[in-house]
Amino acid sequence: MRIIKDTTPLADGFRMPGEFEPHEGCIMIFPERSDSWQYGGYAARKAFVEIAGAIAESEKVTVCASAKQYDNARALLPEAIRVVEMSNNDAWARDYCPTFVTNDKGVIRGIDWGFNAWGGLEDGLYFPWDKDNAMARKLCDLMDKDVYDHRDFILEGGSIHVDGEGTCLVTEACLLSKGRNPQLSREQIEQQLREYLNVSTIIWLPCGIYQDETNEHVDNICAFTAPGEVVLAWTDNQEDVQYEMSLACLRVLEQARDAKGRKLKVHKLPLPEPVCITKEECKGLDLCWDEPTRVPGERLAASYVNFYIANKHIVMPGFGDPADEKAKNILQELFPTREIVQIYARDILIGGGNIHCITQQIPSERL
Amino acid sequence: MRIIKDTTPLADGFRMPGEFEPHEGCIMIFPERSDSWQYGGYAARKAFVEIAGAIAESEKVTVCASAKQYDNARALLPEAIRVVEMSNNDAWARDYCPTFVTNDKGVIRGIDWGFNAWGGLEDGLYFPWDKDNAMARKLCDLMDKDVYDHRDFILEGGSIHVDGEGTCLVTEACLLSKGRNPQLSREQIEQQLREYLNVSTIIWLPCGIYQDETNEHVDNICAFTAPGEVVLAWTDNQEDVQYEMSLACLRVLEQARDAKGRKLKVHKLPLPEPVCITKEECKGLDLCWDEPTRVPGERLAASYVNFYIANKHIVMPGFGDPADEKAKNILQELFPTREIVQIYARDILIGGGNIHCITQQIPSERL
Repeated sequence: MRIIKDTTPLADGFRMPGEFEPHEGCIMIFPERSDSWQYGGYAARKAFVEIAGAIAESEKVTVCASAKQYDNARALLPEAIRVVEMSNNDAWARDYCPTFVTNDKGVIRGIDWGFNAWGGLEDGLYFPWDKDNAMARKLCDLMDKDVYDHRDFILEGGSIHVDGEGTCLVTEACLLSKGRNPQLSREQIEQQLREYLNVSTIIWLPCGIYQDETNEHVDNICAFTAPGEVVLAWTDNQEDVQYEMSLACLRVLEQARDAKGRKLKVHKLPLPEPVCITKEECKGLDLCWDEPTRVPGERLAASYVNFYIANKHIVMPGFGDPADEKAKNILQELFPTREIVQIYARDILIGGGNIHCITQQIPSERL
Repeated sequence: MRIIKDTTPLADGFRMPGEFEPHEGCIMIFPERSDSWQYGGYAARKAFVEIAGAIAESEKVTVCASAKQYDNARALLPEAIRVVEMSNNDAWARDYCPTFVTNDKGVIRGIDWGFNAWGGLEDGLYFPWDKDNAMARKLCDLMDKDVYDHRDFILEGGSIHVDGEGTCLVTEACLLSKGRNPQLSREQIEQQLREYLNVSTIIWLPCGIYQDETNEHVDNICAFTAPGEVVLAWTDNQEDVQYEMSLACLRVLEQARDAKGRKLKVHKLPLPEPVCITKEECKGLDLCWDEPTRVPGERLAASYVNFYIANKHIVMPGFGDPADEKAKNILQELFPTREIVQIYARDILIGGGNIHCITQQIPSERL
């Protein structure tokens, strides 16, 4: 693994492909953090195993497990899934496993962004985050891929979505938050995205999903399904605080032109009825920083937009809500060549994210 | 990774290649065990880094480092060397990283032998050894190679040498020791070697190097340099207890025929003058099982036979002895296409082995 410090993907002719482009595989991390996940991670592990299995139908899955959880991960996951030992602070592969870029020769490189647990000492979610922050580089080493060292810039993979053709979606709530790169202006942050993702157009949504503790990552509210097309998490209930938030995003999307000059086709993806954590569920969580991670009745940031696009499948969350089926049907129409697998994901949602947050695709070397 | 339980390499048409056949790469483990290595492993790490660097001139080196040592390993080793996180009890890659076998299609599989720290509770060298014993399978998983599960049979990689053409060298002192497979007869042990290494002729040397605490592994006294040719650790000093031991081995080798019916050409490789650990060196070692690992004046199992055959280099130990040069010249004659790199290896010898013991080759997939 060569650590690249002096150039950027843009300068070297690399770009981040869209998630819907072909994958070599997918990276996940085995959950065990007892203040993130119920019952010492037991409940989440069951869901992660199901999700890993679903993705493995499409592509090679690598699951990183700590030394403590390695044997358990190896025993619970099917043989076709690779398990590697890797220290971690938690299980959000999207946010701190490498963002991969490719060039027109099919070479793959990683980007090692800085990670500070979604806001560092300002409003981050746990401390320390050193093991998470080390993972991108460790994975590039493991995969024998060169890696761009960009730890000076704080970014999580879930805070960006690209169409692979020069357009990037982000939220102001996240990228302009105080806990990430407060020394940089909006224009300077745009410049980082241009140089590292090789994009020319950045579409700034104002916000994400209500109560999304990542400072409202874009990947929970809006995602490209193809160049020129997005899904937007939506509610028709004007009483819901989310209504104004989604509406504000819709207005931006309707005005936007992508890097190719196209207007975006916006598909509304319904939200489930508000999902709130129960007293019983809160009991299953250990304390974080001597305080409860969640309080009973707290609304969780449930959204169907938080799906993973695998080569042959869409792996999406379900919440036991009537909208489950509706959202599934919409995605089926948008991804006609892929089978939709819906997995009951309440135990992941309790951790603070969903299926997209716990996966990171490796683009294919095949051209 | 598929775990193969029902067949054997012999049945599947796989064989263990000779070490002098082309390699894909080499596996090492970063040392840190403070009762094996001086100064918390500090001295050994310096030597390991030098050895890894020398081998990396020939082939891809992967170094496994514990979570604690990962950052240090990554910082000390050159970029071209891959570092992966992996728990371990100690750093003897030869003995418990996979033995690899190949077939005539260039497919590589691993063998996961049982490992019990050179004798288990009978006369093993440390306890526990669970992390070491898990490494072969973990590495096959990491490398995406299928693996033969043969943990029921205790064997270390350093206790066998093959010519790749059907012949295997072992010592009686080791393979018939009480701490390994006492329930198996010599014939039954031979049968295991036949089925897993795909050999037809097993040459049993009576013993190895005096005081070799592995129960006298063959790889410290005798090694194939080519089919039909071996080097034998030798002393002309009849007062030395090693003299009778090497002589007994020589007699067996002179009588032997290999699998192809050839008589073996035996090249004597001189031993250095006895190397004994000093009081000062013993002070640098932590206790093992509440007892000293070594006592001042203890003779160490120094031997030049403990070299590694890399694709373009022979990486061999030096002891600061007049025989260093002599041994180097002999190996240079025997390996005319390879450059001989001699590395001062006292700090590895103190740990109980040498360069061959801390390396494990991965045969090449190229045919």
